[in-house]
Amino acid sequence: MTTTLTTDLNADAGESFGHWPLGDDARLFPLLTSVNLALGFHAGDPVTLHSAVRLARQHGLGIGAHPGYPDLVGFGRRELALTPLEIQAATLYQIGALQAFLTVEGGTLQHVKAHGALYMRIHEDRAAGEAFCHAVQQLVPQAYLIVLAGAAGSDLALTAAAHGLRVRREAFPERAYTGDGRLASRQLPGSSIHDPAEAARRAVGMAQGWVQTLGGERLALEMDTLCIHGDNPQAVAIAGAIRAALAENGVTLARLHD
Amino acid sequence: MTTTLTTDLNADAGESFGHWPLGDDARLFPLLTSVNLALGFHAGDPVTLHSAVRLARQHGLGIGAHPGYPDLVGFGRRELALTPLEIQAATLYQIGALQAFLTVEGGTLQHVKAHGALYMRIHEDRAAGEAFCHAVQQLVPQAYLIVLAGAAGSDLALTAAAHGLRVRREAFPERAYTGDGRLASRQLPGSSIHDPAEAARRAVGMAQGWVQTLGGERLALEMDTLCIHGDNPQAVAIAGAIRAALAENGVTLARLHD
Amino acid sequence: MTTTLTTDLNADAGESFGHWPLGDDARLFPLLTSVNLALGFHAGDPVTLHSAVRLARQHGLGIGAHPGYPDLVGFGRRELALTPLEIQAATLYQIGALQAFLTVEGGTLQHVKAHGALYMRIHEDRAAGEAFCHAVQQLVPQAYLIVLAGAAGSDLALTAAAHGLRVRREAFPERAYTGDGRLASRQLPGSSIHDPAEAARRAVGMAQGWVQTLGGERLALEMDTLCIHGDNPQAVAIAGAIRAALAENGVTLARLHD
Amino acid sequence: MTTTLTTDLNADAGESFGHWPLGDDARLFPLLTSVNLALGFHAGDPVTLHSAVRLARQHGLGIGAHPGYPDLVGFGRRELALTPLEIQAATLYQIGALQAFLTVEGGTLQHVKAHGALYMRIHEDRAAGEAFCHAVQQLVPQAYLIVLAGAAGSDLALTAAAHGLRVRREAFPERAYTGDGRLASRQLPGSSIHDPAEAARRAVGMAQGWVQTLGGERLALEMDTLCIHGDNPQAVAIAGAIRAALAENGVTLARLHD
Repeated sequence: MTTTLTTDLNADAGESFGHWPLGDDARLFPLLTSVNLALGFHAGDPVTLHSAVRLARQHGLGIGAHPGYPDLVGFGRRELALTPLEIQAATLYQIGALQAFLTVEGGTLQHVKAHGALYMRIHEDRAAGEAFCHAVQQLVPQAYLIVLAGAAGSDLALTAAAHGLRVRREAFPERAYTGDGRLASRQLPGSSIHDPAEAARRAVGMAQGWVQTLGGERLALEMDTLCIHGDNPQAVAIAGAIRAALAENGVTLARLHD
Repeated sequence: MTTTLTTDLNADAGESFGHWPLGDDARLFPLLTSVNLALGFHAGDPVTLHSAVRLARQHGLGIGAHPGYPDLVGFGRRELALTPLEIQAATLYQIGALQAFLTVEGGTLQHVKAHGALYMRIHEDRAAGEAFCHAVQQLVPQAYLIVLAGAAGSDLALTAAAHGLRVRREAFPERAYTGDGRLASRQLPGSSIHDPAEAARRAVGMAQGWVQTLGGERLALEMDTLCIHGDNPQAVAIAGAIRAALAENGVTLARLHD
Repeated sequence: MTTTLTTDLNADAGESFGHWPLGDDARLFPLLTSVNLALGFHAGDPVTLHSAVRLARQHGLGIGAHPGYPDLVGFGRRELALTPLEIQAATLYQIGALQAFLTVEGGTLQHVKAHGALYMRIHEDRAAGEAFCHAVQQLVPQAYLIVLAGAAGSDLALTAAAHGLRVRREAFPERAYTGDGRLASRQLPGSSIHDPAEAARRAVGMAQGWVQTLGGERLALEMDTLCIHGDNPQAVAIAGAIRAALAENGVTLARLHD
Repeated sequence: MTTTLTTDLNADAGESFGHWPLGDDARLFPLLTSVNLALGFHAGDPVTLHSAVRLARQHGLGIGAHPGYPDLVGFGRRELALTPLEIQAATLYQIGALQAFLTVEGGTLQHVKAHGALYMRIHEDRAAGEAFCHAVQQLVPQAYLIVLAGAAGSDLALTAAAHGLRVRREAFPERAYTGDGRLASRQLPGSSIHDPAEAARRAVGMAQGWVQTLGGERLALEMDTLCIHGDNPQAVAIAGAIRAALAENGVTLARLHD
């Protein structure tokens, strides 16, 4: 009996802002199966968003909303102490804006994934996670909610499930993991993987259900989607290496699905 | 035979921004039949917008999208030379954001009305008007598009009709009109009406199909909705005076309808 | 032998933003001796700042820079995790902007006081406090640095002194204090004083060197300046009551001085 | 008898914004003699500005303030109808912010040059030009004011002179000129020069006092500084080619001076 392994490959995209380009969506999108589109609060702008939706549609990608904190100059990576009420409203607002472009270009929202500091916040702060899940449930209950694979994602996954949301777990082949299945701090040496071949090896392991920890052990890690960093100048090379390695190892790439 | 005159009474609302209050939505909404909600580009923010939608729903108001230029410090009143493509994307984005809150709170979008300098721009600049109408037609083809009553609105009305949109014309009882049916420049003495009683008299005339010009003549002016300035400290007094005068003169107030 | 008590009375000001008024600077400034001017990051804009500097000069007020986090919609009251480097640069930038208007209107910078969440941050986070003091020392070493009176201000006062800065301590007659000389949380009942007469009584006590705590005891509290909330609709009434009570009790009001 | 020709070579710089890099200041600065630093309204941010000032000081460049419209997403290239009063205040604010970093890093302001749409505006709109020159005169009367070389710059040059400002004229070796000495519209074919060798040839001509027009004639054009586009990916190649060609033709590069 054979089991066919399948996974999704996502990246943050639509992150240019006005005159400032970021990422190479045109070359990256053909290599992905899903994208998380910036919505104007931490990156992106209406014209960029419209173009990104159109491009994602052309490549048949699963389109995700990628709401973030209202902090352009900080790229949404700085914790900003919004109240749960503010998180809920900001999430509704940003997803709604994306839906306008989906209405115009066709297609439906596949998933919702918070960005940067907001992503970490909703994993760690129960009230913030509730507010975020509540917004998603009210507006787009059919969308998948993306959480961290492993121990770090379990609280948010429970909150999402309690809101009736379908959860998908993401793993990062370019990031090292600690022995308890959490992302290693970027301050630690070896925490970021820059070599496309190494990222590809890790992606294959993840598709097979494990990750090699900083300590060198194999740790079981269940995940549904692999996330690579779209704003990395190497993003295209890494995506290409991952695709090739997955194919070689019999892993099929496909958008998120039930 | 009796004809029953009917009109709509609208105001810009949801114009607070973060810590800065503007307008008194709680006291004004009970006196209106429709509202144009600021969408975060020239005024408003997600929390304010959510509250305004909820309040408008409680009062059964016709809810309109009020997209503006991305110019908070200028309140969207300064011409900002967006390209037609930028106007289209900004319009889609802002209306989409509002629709999220309508989905959550219930209700449908009644109309779309551009704000401030964008409103004037789409009346005067054909390509801008096309971009705006195209966005509305693509996203919310059932919504009414608001244009200036009188000569100043005729070009935009034609563009809107060419896009298959239903047009509604608005008149301003607090503003003076020139002999050719255009709003008199705010620089001219007497161009702004501050007295609630006088605004109310003008509103009745408008409901009856005419306006008194700066020169003192009665000019025919067909219109469908009366607009008062929600950020005016006198807004509640003026709305109350208009309602009373309309009722006395047999004019019924009702949301926009076919 | 008589000792003459002297204190300074300050408020945040210049907090309007574009079309949104906040506070009543024209009526409040005649009652103050010092102002902390918003600098465009959390409130204020160039035109507002220019007007506020001019008005402060007309009333002979001690002019202070009031830098905040770049978070307009949050009014700088939400913690935003800037790095010390970002705090330093943002502080230099904002003070520099104010100095342009001082150059044009005449006058020198009296003091620097951080706003909102940044103010709390530099009191509690050593590295942030160092960055802030370093910026002040590099740019305006002659300016007074304002810190919280009481225990909460002691760390920042030490950091400032280590940078060679002159420190002045501020107390809040509209806020309750805990038994250890800290501001009581705004969540606690009774933590905000709304009655002008009560605020005035507390101001007199502060000028005499003590504060009544939430527990009802007299606690010694050394301070140099009283801060009232300029964005409070009651600000003018409270400032007037404080002035009258201080005068009655022989306390002289004067700008900060050596 | 020999005349030594001298000119200045400037570029816009410090145009990165938060996470978005723009231009390659580290490689470009060694090739320039002056820079125009973005000040946070159309590009740049406090940390970027601080770094750019430091780098410019290391390379001994003439440092210029480059104020623009408050329009980040439009990069200050869209006309935004600020009033003269708003232009004056925005100019003071932005120059003041730069001066803070000059105070900290040492050095003085060499020049002021408006950016993008504001630059065009002050050349074409007398009241705007007056407001801009007035701000410069009030705050930094010793700084050079940069205007377009040729006919397009003459009105602003007169206004500046009337304010007692010292004017310097800039020419663009990467842009074509019309027969009357104005920049050819970017819409016209051949209006932008992309070939470094061709840009270098034109720079030499400009240093010698003439420019070849779109029509092919030599037109006299007096200028004091050559401007290249720092946000162009080819900027380093173009600056290098210009430097080499100027040296070969006996033209000395030097900061602006009397």
